[in-house]
Amino acid sequence: MSALFDRHRGLLEDAVKALSTRGFWSAFPEIPSGKIYGETAKDDGEASFNALLGKSFEIAGHPETGRLGAEMSPWGPALGISYPASDSAALAAASRAAGDIWADASPERRVGVCLEILTRLNRLSFEIANAVMHTTGQAFAMAFQAGGPHAQDRGLEAVATAWVEMTRTPGEVVWEKPQGKAPSIVLQKNWQVVPRGVALVIGCQTFPTWNSYPGLFASLATGNTVIVKPHPGAILPLALTVKVAREVLVEAGLPADVVLLAVDAVGAEITRDLVTHPDIGIIDYTGSSAFGDWVRDNARSAQVFTEEAGVNSIVIAATDDFAGMCANIAFSLSLYSGQMCTAPQDIFIPRDGIVTNEGHKSFDEVAASIGAAVDALLSDPARAAGVCGAIANPATLECIGKARAFGRVVRDSAPLASGRSATPLIVAVDAAGTKAHEEECFGPVAFAVAVDSAEAGIEAAAGLARRKGAITAALYDTDEARIAGAAKAFARSGVNLSINLTGNIFVNQSAAFSDFHVTGGNPAGNASLTDSAFVTNRFRMAMWRRPKAA
Amino acid sequence: MSALFDRHRGLLEDAVKALSTRGFWSAFPEIPSGKIYGETAKDDGEASFNALLGKSFEIAGHPETGRLGAEMSPWGPALGISYPASDSAALAAASRAAGDIWADASPERRVGVCLEILTRLNRLSFEIANAVMHTTGQAFAMAFQAGGPHAQDRGLEAVATAWVEMTRTPGEVVWEKPQGKAPSIVLQKNWQVVPRGVALVIGCQTFPTWNSYPGLFASLATGNTVIVKPHPGAILPLALTVKVAREVLVEAGLPADVVLLAVDAVGAEITRDLVTHPDIGIIDYTGSSAFGDWVRDNARSAQVFTEEAGVNSIVIAATDDFAGMCANIAFSLSLYSGQMCTAPQDIFIPRDGIVTNEGHKSFDEVAASIGAAVDALLSDPARAAGVCGAIANPATLECIGKARAFGRVVRDSAPLASGRSATPLIVAVDAAGTKAHEEECFGPVAFAVAVDSAEAGIEAAAGLARRKGAITAALYDTDEARIAGAAKAFARSGVNLSINLTGNIFVNQSAAFSDFHVTGGNPAGNASLTDSAFVTNRFRMAMWRRPKAA
Repeated sequence: MSALFDRHRGLLEDAVKALSTRGFWSAFPEIPSGKIYGETAKDDGEASFNALLGKSFEIAGHPETGRLGAEMSPWGPALGISYPASDSAALAAASRAAGDIWADASPERRVGVCLEILTRLNRLSFEIANAVMHTTGQAFAMAFQAGGPHAQDRGLEAVATAWVEMTRTPGEVVWEKPQGKAPSIVLQKNWQVVPRGVALVIGCQTFPTWNSYPGLFASLATGNTVIVKPHPGAILPLALTVKVAREVLVEAGLPADVVLLAVDAVGAEITRDLVTHPDIGIIDYTGSSAFGDWVRDNARSAQVFTEEAGVNSIVIAATDDFAGMCANIAFSLSLYSGQMCTAPQDIFIPRDGIVTNEGHKSFDEVAASIGAAVDALLSDPARAAGVCGAIANPATLECIGKARAFGRVVRDSAPLASGRSATPLIVAVDAAGTKAHEEECFGPVAFAVAVDSAEAGIEAAAGLARRKGAITAALYDTDEARIAGAAKAFARSGVNLSINLTGNIFVNQSAAFSDFHVTGGNPAGNASLTDSAFVTNRFRMAMWRRPKAA
Repeated sequence: MSALFDRHRGLLEDAVKALSTRGFWSAFPEIPSGKIYGETAKDDGEASFNALLGKSFEIAGHPETGRLGAEMSPWGPALGISYPASDSAALAAASRAAGDIWADASPERRVGVCLEILTRLNRLSFEIANAVMHTTGQAFAMAFQAGGPHAQDRGLEAVATAWVEMTRTPGEVVWEKPQGKAPSIVLQKNWQVVPRGVALVIGCQTFPTWNSYPGLFASLATGNTVIVKPHPGAILPLALTVKVAREVLVEAGLPADVVLLAVDAVGAEITRDLVTHPDIGIIDYTGSSAFGDWVRDNARSAQVFTEEAGVNSIVIAATDDFAGMCANIAFSLSLYSGQMCTAPQDIFIPRDGIVTNEGHKSFDEVAASIGAAVDALLSDPARAAGVCGAIANPATLECIGKARAFGRVVRDSAPLASGRSATPLIVAVDAAGTKAHEEECFGPVAFAVAVDSAEAGIEAAAGLARRKGAITAALYDTDEARIAGAAKAFARSGVNLSINLTGNIFVNQSAAFSDFHVTGGNPAGNASLTDSAFVTNRFRMAMWRRPKAA
């Protein structure tokens, strides 16, 4: 057995149990509290982050033919960090060279290593939070939660799922087939997990750890070596992750190159070289649908898991808590300025208005009230910065300008005091006259879309999800028959639906060990975090059998 | 709940248990005995089969724009049966039209229907055995076993695996997240299985039921409708299957078109139309690698599961039962004239011979002794016909002629008294001088391949498996260290290995509920019968969540 496995056995067992019960469970506390993480943890993490700025980031023993790195914080300063860089062939060769030893390590040993990595990453949560904040533009609290404990929980979820699937078949059995009056045929059979080979994880800028950890840890646990290819704008969170992983591997007597970092520069990306490299057996990709198409078309022998773009919708049919609904939607639109893959974009509202606990509300009143709720939420500048964060990619700002022209501006976007920022733009359009809202406008852009009826809104939102992809959908309604119909329609479109959310729970949120993130059932992605399908194709079972010695 | 589910609940529970224990277990008796199947079952089955010959095969309510069917028995006569035929668009439309009701049926109801279909197919085993015999050329005993109970076991295995995966996530849970001193957030969450849509099963001529049932039943159980596309030379076994399935569906109050038959003619196949049809969400394919490549390249949005071609090897390093080894190999080469996807083709033997319990044997002696064992096995004409069966496809005979020229004929192939038949050809070649044996020669062709050493044979066989694909491998050896090394080498190549088989168990045989058939880890196929990966991507889980009413 493995010492690391033994150390973390309780954690694994709890995680495995949570996978099947799917109630609330979390291994890594989401509250950035000194009581949990140590009274100096926050300051220490910030100091560690600051100490990295303007320097060479060292990863012991990592292949290196040069140095790259040009990250700019969306909050202002350049990070000035350079990372070891190498070409795709050298990285693939190093990864493959580490492969046999890692494949031969038992599932227990590999899972022990993965759990130790996750536990150490948890202790680094404040440093990683700063790294995430200054690459993604997330505000600190979100960078801590989503970049730290929530990402670690998603990694653990992948490890636990992989463990369940790897141990589903016994390692060894005796197979005894009766032969009537003749002696039985008795065979000894032995199965082992055979990994696919080298896995590639292609990270995104907005959630470098959260979106990468599931693929990284699912591939690692199942015996594949992993090359982590960060977005050139968000390298540091994954460089810290790779460094920790390599340290744990070496301490466990395993090759550091089981986990490698593939750094590149904007305009000279090596992603295509890696995707098409014949050694790559698995690709986890988070990013645009256009490049996702390319990856799927060009990665012939690799198993490809994707999270791509989509258009998420809210349908407002009726509500018995109009103010609560508007406040809830306002927060969902504002959080990280709509840069979450789960953020809503289209709000379908009947053209003739809706019934609410405050009486009938016209289309314009509903749209305006959501706008007013955004204004109220963001009225305090500190809170506004804490909710909206900054804009990761300057190109996102251009979308705002374009979207203004699509209809009537209900609430305009504006920068905040700090960082490259933009509050939500809300534009009113009519589905009878435009299809502009059917394209993804990534970032703080929402459309209030007038439709014939609540039913028409449900049909439009579900159809859009099926055609263009969607990760989330929300419905506000008081008619149980219509709610049931909507649940069926969105399920058929492969979208998870949140109904009548008010208060401190939002359509954007997806909880590890309970909510599957993405269903895989529409163009927003072909994989789901973390179902069995996410891990089962990362390895194969190979058997030998022989007559059992008497 | 479902009456059919309740009726077969015990069968399902036993099957689910067998999946995890993986000892010997079978639901459907493989012995064609009157005591098991009824004293008149054999005669009744033959009479039912004979009554179908020369007639229109009727499938109530099946789409039909014409009639097709030109099956010829490899044992002689034309079947003269015509089947309802339709084009791909009409079949896809009918399948899709049945989809919503089938998707909405609960997993219990669908699984109940699948289990009832399998149970009725079991009762039809003698009729199906005749249908399999006279389309594939298998001898009756094999046609009964492989075409009947073994195929039904594989179908049941797929249903049980699908059941495990569909019920892994609870249908409904309460999620309660603590909020410190504030009241918890309490959500009700509900999950449902969402199928991909229309599934296509592309059958082969040699094992029309055995190779089709896993995909058929895995797709059905998970809520997909299925279009079954038989090989034009082996329609009847699948036509009977489709007919039974439709009868069960209708009796259960469900649309018959959940299962459809897509008949075509040689030279006017509709397979390409079906593969590229946008409604097809899943494809199960058994057949050549060349067409498999085409399917994978052209089925962009469908999940594709394949079993393709490969080159299976035996390595003879040493043996303590020379006669037993030769007899065992002789049977494996002769069974159904090498037309099994699990049949060995290349027998690697050290050029300097091997150590045996009968003393040293030269390369030539080993090859000749295997040839002599084939002669002995086939010396009785009735037994020869029962072992070899007939040749399904006339093109297979051409391969024999070509292969003769590749080296020195150790044992020549010859026709038997009945049917289009050919006994095994054994050709001696030297790996130092040719690569002819590295290409698949489908049918009764084996190469005795001289190599430098046992280790070189293991390396050659494992490398060949990795490059060209292989479903089985066998090793005869007495050196435990070398056996362990071989086990590792073949596992890395994704091949299941049988070691030192003698007596009544053969490398060709793969037992449902214990042996995974194909690993998915080399070019012989991307799927494994039946692991979780074979079912998990056939459906998605969709959720709705809402605040729980107090």
